[in-house]
Amino acid sequence: MLKEYINPAVPDKEELKAEIKIERERLFGYQMKLKEAKLPVMVIFEGWGASGKGSVIGKVINNIDPRFFKVKTIADPTDEEKRYPFLRRYLMEIPESGKFTFYDSYWMEEVTNGAVKGDLPESEYKKRIASINRTERSLHDNGYLILKFFLHISKKQQKKRFDELLADKDTSWRVSKADLYQNKHYDEYLDVYDRYLEDTNNPTAPWYIIGADNSRNVELQVLRFLNQGIDTALKNHSLAVPILQNPFRLVPMPKLADISLDDKVLTDEEYKEKLDKLQDELRQLHYKLYRKKIPVVICYEGWDAAGKGGNIKRIAEALDPRGYEVLPIASPEPHEKARHFLWRFWTRLPKTGHIAIFDRTWYGRVMVERLEGFCSENDWQRAYNEMNEFEKELTDGGMVVIKFWVQIDKDTQLARFTERQNTPEKQWKITDEDWRNREKWDAYEVAINEMLQKTSTDFAPWYILESVDKKYARIKALQIVIDAVKKACES
Amino acid sequence: MLKEYINPAVPDKEELKAEIKIERERLFGYQMKLKEAKLPVMVIFEGWGASGKGSVIGKVINNIDPRFFKVKTIADPTDEEKRYPFLRRYLMEIPESGKFTFYDSYWMEEVTNGAVKGDLPESEYKKRIASINRTERSLHDNGYLILKFFLHISKKQQKKRFDELLADKDTSWRVSKADLYQNKHYDEYLDVYDRYLEDTNNPTAPWYIIGADNSRNVELQVLRFLNQGIDTALKNHSLAVPILQNPFRLVPMPKLADISLDDKVLTDEEYKEKLDKLQDELRQLHYKLYRKKIPVVICYEGWDAAGKGGNIKRIAEALDPRGYEVLPIASPEPHEKARHFLWRFWTRLPKTGHIAIFDRTWYGRVMVERLEGFCSENDWQRAYNEMNEFEKELTDGGMVVIKFWVQIDKDTQLARFTERQNTPEKQWKITDEDWRNREKWDAYEVAINEMLQKTSTDFAPWYILESVDKKYARIKALQIVIDAVKKACES
Repeated sequence: MLKEYINPAVPDKEELKAEIKIERERLFGYQMKLKEAKLPVMVIFEGWGASGKGSVIGKVINNIDPRFFKVKTIADPTDEEKRYPFLRRYLMEIPESGKFTFYDSYWMEEVTNGAVKGDLPESEYKKRIASINRTERSLHDNGYLILKFFLHISKKQQKKRFDELLADKDTSWRVSKADLYQNKHYDEYLDVYDRYLEDTNNPTAPWYIIGADNSRNVELQVLRFLNQGIDTALKNHSLAVPILQNPFRLVPMPKLADISLDDKVLTDEEYKEKLDKLQDELRQLHYKLYRKKIPVVICYEGWDAAGKGGNIKRIAEALDPRGYEVLPIASPEPHEKARHFLWRFWTRLPKTGHIAIFDRTWYGRVMVERLEGFCSENDWQRAYNEMNEFEKELTDGGMVVIKFWVQIDKDTQLARFTERQNTPEKQWKITDEDWRNREKWDAYEVAINEMLQKTSTDFAPWYILESVDKKYARIKALQIVIDAVKKACES
Repeated sequence: MLKEYINPAVPDKEELKAEIKIERERLFGYQMKLKEAKLPVMVIFEGWGASGKGSVIGKVINNIDPRFFKVKTIADPTDEEKRYPFLRRYLMEIPESGKFTFYDSYWMEEVTNGAVKGDLPESEYKKRIASINRTERSLHDNGYLILKFFLHISKKQQKKRFDELLADKDTSWRVSKADLYQNKHYDEYLDVYDRYLEDTNNPTAPWYIIGADNSRNVELQVLRFLNQGIDTALKNHSLAVPILQNPFRLVPMPKLADISLDDKVLTDEEYKEKLDKLQDELRQLHYKLYRKKIPVVICYEGWDAAGKGGNIKRIAEALDPRGYEVLPIASPEPHEKARHFLWRFWTRLPKTGHIAIFDRTWYGRVMVERLEGFCSENDWQRAYNEMNEFEKELTDGGMVVIKFWVQIDKDTQLARFTERQNTPEKQWKITDEDWRNREKWDAYEVAINEMLQKTSTDFAPWYILESVDKKYARIKALQIVIDAVKKACES
């Protein structure tokens, strides 16, 4: 794309002024409409060193009320950031609905720099491209408008700008060694940039190349594409998008009705003995995975009163408190609802060597949100894939992802509800909502079966914890966690 | 995708029957809604030999009124078809709005067979993939729902089916040599199929793999994906899609106001002399391009009364009538309006060695259709790219595409209109509509300038024919056609 590109003609001064004025007013007019439509807008600027990214961002934001936008400059990852999956530090910074975020470079730069310098092998490059394409598509599908601008200047023009900056001692600091390296290796960068643009140019998040040799002509080009993109997105309010087939290898799962529960029991003695042994083993393994810098996510989903809390407790008891966190997941806060539904999980991921235990998870999307109508049908139908892709990112980065479904039957739930109701110190554990959910047992069962079938991938499979006998379920959970962590430590 | 795929579990007999019944009724219910929404649906079946494509198409169409669907079997290209661009014979068969077309293989097979057999070099393969992706996106953007199914069976299963067919003399004819070749080279095909599916799996036209080892389980899978796709598409009625940046190299064009006209004149003597010479030259060249099998498209656009007809006449006079056609383009017929706006041009392309002269063209989209509101803003804004892509297909296949803009000024038009009005034998040439269009001169000028800027690619540039002196314009046109044809004959 970049190699075919020819700079557009520059309008004469008066015409340029008049055209810019029109586009500025258009953009100004769009901000309230974006707010009303709850449309989040990501405006990503990439480009050559000294191509004027900062300058054009400065001009564009002049037309927007400061309450409606943020500007993010994403630099090289810190050591702390390197302890998380590649995409995380970028996804942390997505805007909330109705607002703009302008990025002075986003995930392109880390990938292209790696490719030019040879730090990123071809196979890793391809993986990153797949991650980026999937993620941009998922953001789009969840209502984000993504506009990507590449500011393009020639080798000669870049050299001239660096020379001018270097000639003045007040500006010479702005030219880095990396800048001069880029100019010297311009053609190599051109190859890598061109390929990246081709590889990530999708209708869901298209590239727009901006001819920036003439700096006077940058703002108008950007504003036109920006306004056109907003205009199109506003016309498509609450879009339904195609449901893609899951591309990952799935592990067959039983239907809930076919899981036998009553034979999954342990005596108190068996339980105590195994519990001690397994907790000791997990304790040792926790140090090992800390040293090996392996991050672990343990997900708990299950019926109300299935025994999630007690099960989590038996895992947590075995862990060093400095190295794990239990994350209870309630309904999303307003600032979370205003973003991609996985955002609040991206921000809660464990870093290398740490364990995060989620008490309820992102799977709320296809259970409570589906059944209560908190999201559209298209939203939850898409979510199976989106969650598989999310977990693919985590596990590709070396994370261990363990997912538990804690299973009981309807009678057992009733018995436990009744006991809670009748035991003063347990009454806080039972609410009207629990009873209401119970009435929807059958609908939930349909949803849970679909979830288990569609999201048990070979990299993040579901495990059933038969929990009519809670002791049995706890021992089984410990054993599964131990096996998975051991395997990860050995590989 | 194919390599990760695992066959889904087969529901038991009763359950399967019940589920199929639900999906059949859903599909039946959709047909009238599709009609009302004017949604055209392309359902493409690809897959292994003996995977059961024909059988499942037969089952699916049982639920649809015969007035609402067609079934197309696309075989190897005939010699006649090979004289046209690759995509043409497929695009001929796109459905009209509100109707289904089911394809028993589409453009995948020609590409993958070529890749397996080695007839299609890697560079050609990549070109075809780019063509297919662009075209599927363009169909989608113009309102087509495209669902692509790949029927997947194992090597063993395929072998078993061929053996069974061969064992019975009534069915043995159904197994071809090509079938047996495929089974023998199953793994090579698997590589090629898998790559093709990956390369063409876009949200705008996604692939769905259907596990067909168990033939009982094929219909349900297909119906589910089909109904889901229709459901999503119906929710997105009259979608606005992102306007992509033109990816091709553009030739800078002057604005109409800057074109000097009065100095572009010829004396009668100069004209006569050049006309004879150039027509002779073109006549000779026509035989040459016929022998060289080069197809040529000459496009005429221009103001009313600019002199298109007379200009075309001077080209046509020099050509062998067996080798050219003049195609006057009026408003689209109902069956043309019901399809992609380029369909009526795909069906009118010249074959190798032939010349098609279009008197008005596909550029009506960004002139009359834009100004009269016959298409949406999103439609005509997208059309610049779609037309560039269309011409890219033609020229990539070796076609010469020459585009003329016949230019006069407003006063000259008035003089010619008045003369027509006052000359009885020319009155048929002037209508009320001409006068109405003239009132919109300024709006047309804006649209024409934008068209010339955005669609003058290096493979299909616009040429301005200054036609205040019609003689000058005719000679210039002849010279341009001669130069372009000569260049093509030499390369």
